[in-house]
Order: sequence, then C-alpha cells, then structure tokens
Amino acid sequence: MDNYRVALDAIFHALSDPTRRAVVQQLAAGPATVSALSEPFDMALPSFMKHMRVLEESGLVSSSKSGRVRTCTLERDKLAATERWFEQQRALWSNRYDNLDNLLEQLQGDDNGR
Amino acid sequence: MDNYRVALDAIFHALSDPTRRAVVQQLAAGPATVSALSEPFDMALPSFMKHMRVLEESGLVSSSKSGRVRTCTLERDKLAATERWFEQQRALWSNRYDNLDNLLEQLQGDDNGR
Repeated sequence: MDNYRVALDAIFHALSDPTRRAVVQQLAAGPATVSALSEPFDMALPSFMKHMRVLEESGLVSSSKSGRVRTCTLERDKLAATERWFEQQRALWSNRYDNLDNLLEQLQGDDNGR
Repeated sequence: MDNYRVALDAIFHALSDPTRRAVVQQLAAGPATVSALSEPFDMALPSFMKHMRVLEESGLVSSSKSGRVRTCTLERDKLAATERWFEQQRALWSNRYDNLDNLLEQLQGDDNGR
C-alpha cells in the first residue's frame, strides 16, 4: 500500500506536465525511439531528456538501448493502476448515493405506514 | 483544449501528494468541514490549509463558508474529466492492437491463398 502511494506521487507528478503527457500519448500508440518522441517538440534535447527521466523514474516508461538507438515503451500496467485510483473514488460516491437511496426508501416506507 | 491542458496540469499536480489524495477520498464520500477533513492528519492547520488551497486552485474542490464553518465539496466532474484522459490513452493502445489483429488476419489470408 505504501509502495502504491509512493508510486502514485511520482506518477501524478509525471503527468502534471503537458510535454510528458504528450509523450505518454505517443507511447500509448506503440514503442518509439527517443528521437522520434522528441521530434514534435520545439525543445533542446537536454530539456527533453529531463522529461524522459521523470517519466522513467515514475515507472510509467521503460527504455532499452540497441547501439545508439534508445527505444521507449509505455508501462501500461502502471497507467492502469493509476486509473484504478479514480475508480475507487467513484465507488465511494456511488456508495454514498446508494445510502441516500436507501434512506429515501426508508423515509417513504415510514410515510406509507402512517 | 488549452484550458483542458492547463486544468490537467493543476489537477495532476494536486493529486501528486498523499495528503491531498486522502482529502479527495474523504470528500468522495460527501462534503465535509475543513476541521473534519484536517482531523486525520498530524499536521499544523496552516500546512493543511496550503494543501486545501492547491486542491481549490486545481478546481477539484470548492468550498463555502457559513459563519465560522467552511464546508468543502468535491467537484466530481473535474475528477471525471481527468479519468477520461486515461480512457483516451487506453483507446490509443486498443486501436494499436486492433491494427495488429487486422495485419495478422491479412497475413494469414495471404498464407491460405498460397
């Protein structure tokens, strides 16, 4: 659980930047080289590499090097685990409305019984 | 679109902290006063209020004051909009696998035709 919390800290931080979200989006369509990923951005390579490091440190992206070419892959399970956090919050408020429904039914029952 | 990007920057930043995520979780179960929200945390009130400000500035939480009591509410539509970002990424990789399926079928078709 604590690991999950630390991972969420790093993943949400990684996603709080538009360049990094755009990289995740590119990688969702399939693995890509660093140079292909950097191409759409008007950004010096060292700045772009900083973003890539934040993504790798969060665990959202992994990479492997073959010769001079580094290829990046999206770690879909990390993204899916993050999405589950939102589902958990939705479950909480659904519960809340179920409870309100039950209360309403109970109140209506009391009313009919009068 | 640009507003959506700026909103996501602020929302993901707000969610990158465990205290703020815990507050969102408490509010998912229903509105609550600031003092009730701060209760589970071993934190000075000014530090806690800083977290609340980050949440309010992101648009995830709104609040209203009645007398001396401030009540906070989760803006569920903002959380839902953020969850949709994850759905979009999932759609991208599903597409990718559909394309691979089509390619495989095509290759098998070619094979049978030989």
